[in-house]
Amino acid sequence: MVSIGIDLGGTNIAVGAVSEEGALLSQVCVPTRSQRPYQDVVREMAACVRETLQKAQLPETALRSIGIGVPGAVDPVQGTVIGCSNIPWHGVPLRSEMQRYFSVPVFLENDATVAALAETVCGAAKGAGSCVMLTLGTGVGSGIILNGRPWNGAFRQGGEIGHMVLYPNGVPCACGRNGCVERYCSATALALRGKQACWAHPDSLILEKAGGDIEGITARMVMDAAKEGDAPALRAVSAFADALALTIDNIINFLDPEIIVLGGGVSRAGAFLLDAVLPRIPTTDRLDPRTLPSIVLAQLGSEAGVIGAAMLQ
Amino acid sequence: MVSIGIDLGGTNIAVGAVSEEGALLSQVCVPTRSQRPYQDVVREMAACVRETLQKAQLPETALRSIGIGVPGAVDPVQGTVIGCSNIPWHGVPLRSEMQRYFSVPVFLENDATVAALAETVCGAAKGAGSCVMLTLGTGVGSGIILNGRPWNGAFRQGGEIGHMVLYPNGVPCACGRNGCVERYCSATALALRGKQACWAHPDSLILEKAGGDIEGITARMVMDAAKEGDAPALRAVSAFADALALTIDNIINFLDPEIIVLGGGVSRAGAFLLDAVLPRIPTTDRLDPRTLPSIVLAQLGSEAGVIGAAMLQ
Repeated sequence: MVSIGIDLGGTNIAVGAVSEEGALLSQVCVPTRSQRPYQDVVREMAACVRETLQKAQLPETALRSIGIGVPGAVDPVQGTVIGCSNIPWHGVPLRSEMQRYFSVPVFLENDATVAALAETVCGAAKGAGSCVMLTLGTGVGSGIILNGRPWNGAFRQGGEIGHMVLYPNGVPCACGRNGCVERYCSATALALRGKQACWAHPDSLILEKAGGDIEGITARMVMDAAKEGDAPALRAVSAFADALALTIDNIINFLDPEIIVLGGGVSRAGAFLLDAVLPRIPTTDRLDPRTLPSIVLAQLGSEAGVIGAAMLQ
Repeated sequence: MVSIGIDLGGTNIAVGAVSEEGALLSQVCVPTRSQRPYQDVVREMAACVRETLQKAQLPETALRSIGIGVPGAVDPVQGTVIGCSNIPWHGVPLRSEMQRYFSVPVFLENDATVAALAETVCGAAKGAGSCVMLTLGTGVGSGIILNGRPWNGAFRQGGEIGHMVLYPNGVPCACGRNGCVERYCSATALALRGKQACWAHPDSLILEKAGGDIEGITARMVMDAAKEGDAPALRAVSAFADALALTIDNIINFLDPEIIVLGGGVSRAGAFLLDAVLPRIPTTDRLDPRTLPSIVLAQLGSEAGVIGAAMLQ
């Protein structure tokens, strides 16, 4: 038996067949074209499910369940999409629409939660009873796993660590608050720090990596320049690491999960990121510093969305 | 059958017999005298358990379990007190010591968690599946209930919302951080704001309530003066409410519990406190503002410690 995982994104839909052990057997990817009626999107999703099964040479009778990771708030009990940030869906009955094509159980979850579930079941947090995953990308997504199960809050609007306020009266955020975690800990925020550094220091290696185009600077260029010892880049990474360490410290004092997983674009900086962040997390007030949660890099990369969705139940 | 709940405090030990419905049948209170060997403290606790049963006219055979709320970090699995802030106990085998006197199951939990459990079972959050309780007293304690069960973290050091950083580079805290929630949202913090107000405005009603003694100003005096319209007191309460609303907003974005309960000394200001705090919590970015968690005042007061401890299992 296999489960299908669907990673519904603002740009693409990835559909994969996943074994009970969490192995990705086959995958199909199509553009979301989210301005279409949702019924058309779901019809194409269903076609992709059939294609994915064919690629894995599996009959439809081998299909156990379909899980869908959604970039927004979902109601897994009602099977509806409450609302998304990058797709114009509000109150979409996604489960019942998908069940017009397949009679197997269909599960929905928020995509950041789905990625955390995948890392907990077969990735960096394998075997952990509790896990918080931060996805450091365009924004900061977060997924919470407690007692092995996703936790999305009583009103399905928890796990929004990206919109916790880190610096009151800080940088304005699209959510209406000022100083959100997302404005300091995302790839976007690190890129912005790189741009600011280059206005003050046009001789920075960051700007060289961007081919002289300040607006083309990415988080990766800042990290790469810092790895090579460029002083403005190192200062940008240092300020970024301060904010991320503060966020992680707050997560520990609130929830004290067994493992904290860092994913998303920024996490590709690897050990360099951990080396910058870990020494900034206070340990002196811990009753026993050895009991600090492990802080690790995500292992599953972009496949986490498909694998985690397939694991929903 | 009854359960005994023990509320172990830095100053006093309260022991109560609690019915299965959560009714307090009898209670005994003695000074902790925490400098004694812990064995002596536990011996007196055991005597209090017997006295409490006698006062309720119950035989020892009616005793189902003993629960102890501890002002610090506990390991409920090992039955030990890891460490306390106000009692010099480290690695104390509290459960096995108590079981020298009684053969019934003995349970331990952090006292703020125990209070949250009591409010969830038979107080302000009765029937809620998830609850975060903030105890606004000398410090800021917090207890987390998820799926009806206490959550203390993977390493028993979660639920320390009082030491989440609210204002980076803010007021120094004894924990080593700067700008902790506790330094802005405790009764101590509100009293300090009142004192500061009176240095600038010695004609404030706050100072009159303190009999002219600035150092004698309490949070209650600040609240009372604000209720009577005293401008410096209103400004102090306003700044306090800003910090508390920010903390509550962060709790919602992280965990989204069904109910948030405010307890401790500051909560005795009642509706005046809620009226100051609730309008400051952002709702505009909620997908549906009606799904904001309820924010309510604690109902059980000082009995929550004993009742919640008796409910441990």
